Amino acid sequence: MKKFTLKDQGKFYYSIDPKNKPRMYLDISETLIVETEDSSSGHIRKMTDKRDYKKAPHSNPQSGPFYINGAEKGDTLVVELLNIRPSIGQGNTRLQKWWWYLGHRESAQTISDFLQPNIPDGLRIMPIEKDTVYFDQLALPYKPMIGTIGTAPELEAVSTYLPGHHGGNMDLPCVTNGCKLYFPVKVPGALLHLGDAHAIQGEGEISGVAVEMPAEVTLKVGLIKNKAIDWPRIENDEYIMSVGCTGAGRTLEDAIRLAYVNLNLWMEEYGINRWDAWELCSFLGKVTLGNIWCVAAGFPKKYLR
Amino acid sequence: MKKFTLKDQGKFYYSIDPKNKPRMYLDISETLIVETEDSSSGHIRKMTDKRDYKKAPHSNPQSGPFYINGAEKGDTLVVELLNIRPSIGQGNTRLQKWWWYLGHRESAQTISDFLQPNIPDGLRIMPIEKDTVYFDQLALPYKPMIGTIGTAPELEAVSTYLPGHHGGNMDLPCVTNGCKLYFPVKVPGALLHLGDAHAIQGEGEISGVAVEMPAEVTLKVGLIKNKAIDWPRIENDEYIMSVGCTGAGRTLEDAIRLAYVNLNLWMEEYGINRWDAWELCSFLGKVTLGNIWCVAAGFPKKYLR
Amino acid sequence: MKKFTLKDQGKFYYSIDPKNKPRMYLDISETLIVETEDSSSGHIRKMTDKRDYKKAPHSNPQSGPFYINGAEKGDTLVVELLNIRPSIGQGNTRLQKWWWYLGHRESAQTISDFLQPNIPDGLRIMPIEKDTVYFDQLALPYKPMIGTIGTAPELEAVSTYLPGHHGGNMDLPCVTNGCKLYFPVKVPGALLHLGDAHAIQGEGEISGVAVEMPAEVTLKVGLIKNKAIDWPRIENDEYIMSVGCTGAGRTLEDAIRLAYVNLNLWMEEYGINRWDAWELCSFLGKVTLGNIWCVAAGFPKKYLR
Amino acid sequence: MKKFTLKDQGKFYYSIDPKNKPRMYLDISETLIVETEDSSSGHIRKMTDKRDYKKAPHSNPQSGPFYINGAEKGDTLVVELLNIRPSIGQGNTRLQKWWWYLGHRESAQTISDFLQPNIPDGLRIMPIEKDTVYFDQLALPYKPMIGTIGTAPELEAVSTYLPGHHGGNMDLPCVTNGCKLYFPVKVPGALLHLGDAHAIQGEGEISGVAVEMPAEVTLKVGLIKNKAIDWPRIENDEYIMSVGCTGAGRTLEDAIRLAYVNLNLWMEEYGINRWDAWELCSFLGKVTLGNIWCVAAGFPKKYLR
Repeated sequence: MKKFTLKDQGKFYYSIDPKNKPRMYLDISETLIVETEDSSSGHIRKMTDKRDYKKAPHSNPQSGPFYINGAEKGDTLVVELLNIRPSIGQGNTRLQKWWWYLGHRESAQTISDFLQPNIPDGLRIMPIEKDTVYFDQLALPYKPMIGTIGTAPELEAVSTYLPGHHGGNMDLPCVTNGCKLYFPVKVPGALLHLGDAHAIQGEGEISGVAVEMPAEVTLKVGLIKNKAIDWPRIENDEYIMSVGCTGAGRTLEDAIRLAYVNLNLWMEEYGINRWDAWELCSFLGKVTLGNIWCVAAGFPKKYLR
Repeated sequence: MKKFTLKDQGKFYYSIDPKNKPRMYLDISETLIVETEDSSSGHIRKMTDKRDYKKAPHSNPQSGPFYINGAEKGDTLVVELLNIRPSIGQGNTRLQKWWWYLGHRESAQTISDFLQPNIPDGLRIMPIEKDTVYFDQLALPYKPMIGTIGTAPELEAVSTYLPGHHGGNMDLPCVTNGCKLYFPVKVPGALLHLGDAHAIQGEGEISGVAVEMPAEVTLKVGLIKNKAIDWPRIENDEYIMSVGCTGAGRTLEDAIRLAYVNLNLWMEEYGINRWDAWELCSFLGKVTLGNIWCVAAGFPKKYLR
Repeated sequence: MKKFTLKDQGKFYYSIDPKNKPRMYLDISETLIVETEDSSSGHIRKMTDKRDYKKAPHSNPQSGPFYINGAEKGDTLVVELLNIRPSIGQGNTRLQKWWWYLGHRESAQTISDFLQPNIPDGLRIMPIEKDTVYFDQLALPYKPMIGTIGTAPELEAVSTYLPGHHGGNMDLPCVTNGCKLYFPVKVPGALLHLGDAHAIQGEGEISGVAVEMPAEVTLKVGLIKNKAIDWPRIENDEYIMSVGCTGAGRTLEDAIRLAYVNLNLWMEEYGINRWDAWELCSFLGKVTLGNIWCVAAGFPKKYLR
Repeated sequence: MKKFTLKDQGKFYYSIDPKNKPRMYLDISETLIVETEDSSSGHIRKMTDKRDYKKAPHSNPQSGPFYINGAEKGDTLVVELLNIRPSIGQGNTRLQKWWWYLGHRESAQTISDFLQPNIPDGLRIMPIEKDTVYFDQLALPYKPMIGTIGTAPELEAVSTYLPGHHGGNMDLPCVTNGCKLYFPVKVPGALLHLGDAHAIQGEGEISGVAVEMPAEVTLKVGLIKNKAIDWPRIENDEYIMSVGCTGAGRTLEDAIRLAYVNLNLWMEEYGINRWDAWELCSFLGKVTLGNIWCVAAGFPKKYLR
């Protein structure tokens, strides 16, 4: 087992870029404990703190990348999430400017600036104790997840605000303890990045943020040689799931359909023909919404004999 | 308790129209057992049957409308679904032309005709026994739901293919035994329509159809006087949910946001201010996808003290 | 030539409904001068006027319907727009609540009410003189168009806020003097409705309203027997155009593609195979945006030999 | 005047990346003649050619980047397009797999592979002579444009398939001779990239390709110091235009609205308040569709006094 701390990290990455320098090398089957910072780069620890946008103009700082020895283009990287625990016993959240109901960050911010609606700041420091997250007196369950995790694309460097073929900012609540993640390997070493843990998050992450927390993540890496996948896959005890996300020319409807098409192809690997798989998904399919621009379409494993 | 059969119905309605003639009058708190036909108007009972498009050019035939005595514009109709059971021990499904991955029926059909992809018909008669629905040998759970249910709009007559403010073809799996539905009353008597039951359906109803079945539905009507709601609401033991759907100028993203906004307003009725409600939904919100053009955003009741 | 006044109309229709009673019968090739009221039912004639929402809860009042003798389901109605002139030498516009940047009327209104941004009312009475419309001192060109025009659907009654297969609230600037409109005939007599004229309107009608005016419209009706079209078509000296609009499950991207698919099929009628047509549209196609939920895709006639 | 040839370029870039090495340095006001290759990297010159996907796995190869001396983050780069001429007297086009009606390249390709519709290849070599482009015997006008042009983003490397804040694959027909383009400067030297010229292209570029040609582009660079813009702007004799594009969480509707919001802010620079600007755009606004995921919203300059 290896350990990788924020101190080891030093400077964070804010894009998932094939040119990012590996910070650590891992062997297949190796277990890693990695520290991640919260989405606002750790600037908000108490109610009077202000985020310094000069020092952290971007969000969702990434730990890594981790170079997986032996991983090559055309393979699939497997990441088992063994444990996600809060580093400092608290998280934070806020509303900012309401803009999250108005569209993605950049356009919503422009429109909000134009409109200037009067929205409370909504900043809260939220204690996390054992299995509980506190919203004032209200006790919410601790259901940790990783908001941003993925491998380097081949050609692009993707902001950690965005999801894509490489994973990235999927904000899927099912990316939690006990799940297995599968990512395309596009560059030597795969270059695994992760960060942006949440103590709990709802589907849609409708205010634009969840309970953002610094975390200590235990994970184990694996590799499937010579098997290429087009989009991330997720597996837990109950479901196999395929990810789809919006992007230029892909609407949310397209993302859902695409996730199902890829799920059908995955079901084919279990010996079910794609047309039967398609019908079965129309009866048993389950859609998990991450943030509003990413979904996972799942099928229950118990019907895959 | 009243009973309303397909024979009482006679001719079906294929649009939810304020001008549809009431077929039965119900008092508040009255329980009704109503028979509904399947989405293809009962034309497909065995593998050799063909749907007669001259006799049933439209889908999702409606039983009713039921006139609720005392209901007036500005009230809210409450419908408790007590039981949905299969009338004839079977349902059916099919693929048709693949077009459901391509968009809504009408446009997808045009594009499919243009493309002429080679898709199997996928017709199946599916036996339903007790708690099981059979897909060949594969035993699926019986999880019944009503695909199309709603009250008459004020001005429009809406095809039973479409959802809207009035409910209609929402295809939400949570519209099932034990739930309470709330609909806007826009015309005298509310004019409740329902039909299009499914033995089981996944989120997204990705092939365009589920396990379509004729059913016997037991329901109880209630009324909240002088309380107007804008969109349907759904409540079960665990969640309160607000419905949103796509439509001219409302994308799926808009539908999700709108459902959440209305959910936040519902949470205000529980004494939580809308901004707190908004943050809480970002942690605990749950989105159920019906067909691809309708969603429900839900909040767990146990956090509403 | 026949004349049909607002007095003949009496009560307006606010939905395009196959059950609307014909107000006048027209023969093929007959010319009609019809008066239409503005989108706010004539309530706003001077700056101090207020719209009475009790008397006119809906917008885009329709004149008609006109029953075209001989028109039957499966035919195509042709409407030539010969002249659109302002009835009273002025129009009006307003901003209301900004909500038009936020989505379609209903959802946008809900979100605006939630947000309460501070937006000016923006009401203006705008004089129209000859070829000029005045925005204070700024002289804009008079480019009249009909915002809402269509034939009755078969099954549905569609609010005059919405466009669809039947036409309706397309808000296309190309629906102007000299164009020919083609609409599907779904019911006996076709039942032509029209209203909601604009003195000038930009693509997107981004504030939600244009220069709304009462108008006197001269048109001539024609009929193509036994030719069914799926969506409205528009023709002028330069272009043939096919209409597409958003709706449940049809995104704006889908609407654009669908308009092009139907345009390609129209080009086939000129002897160009659909695949060549498709390539040619990729070089010469032109998209006109009406309101944000309706488009027309056009091809220049001079390349149709 | 400087000249930059394909030989000077050597290896092409397929992403617009702040880490791309400058290939030439330009002073403000300098004029450049730059050669660009066609979208398939020059592999298709005659009907029997096949694109070698191993050598050119990506499309839209870029010439440059050009480092503009003095350009710094927070400035605006100005590019005047003086002339676009075909390098070799021909262009090419094709259909490939029909998938362009189905969504963006990646998802559409997956769905097409699943569906396997029977679509002709549609490959054509198209001669370009003076002002004419030949589609078999049909003479089309030569209306050249640059499909992909932009400055480096700060953080991301964007595939040349995609548009964004930085410009990129906008495929706007108005990016033609005589226009002025404004791009945000995010990194020292701005790093201008360009390529992917089209001899003619329709709105929507509905087959996914236009008449793709290698070209010789004459342009002149300028700089506005200390003026930051959020999205590209375009200006010609008649219009000022602001660009918007779809992307994670921004639907096409959002892209149109965002382009108008930014256009309104630009109009403010002319002394028109934003609310009047908003109303005026509702009367005079014009939307140009590039490929289906990029638009420009324009306002006629003659009404800006």
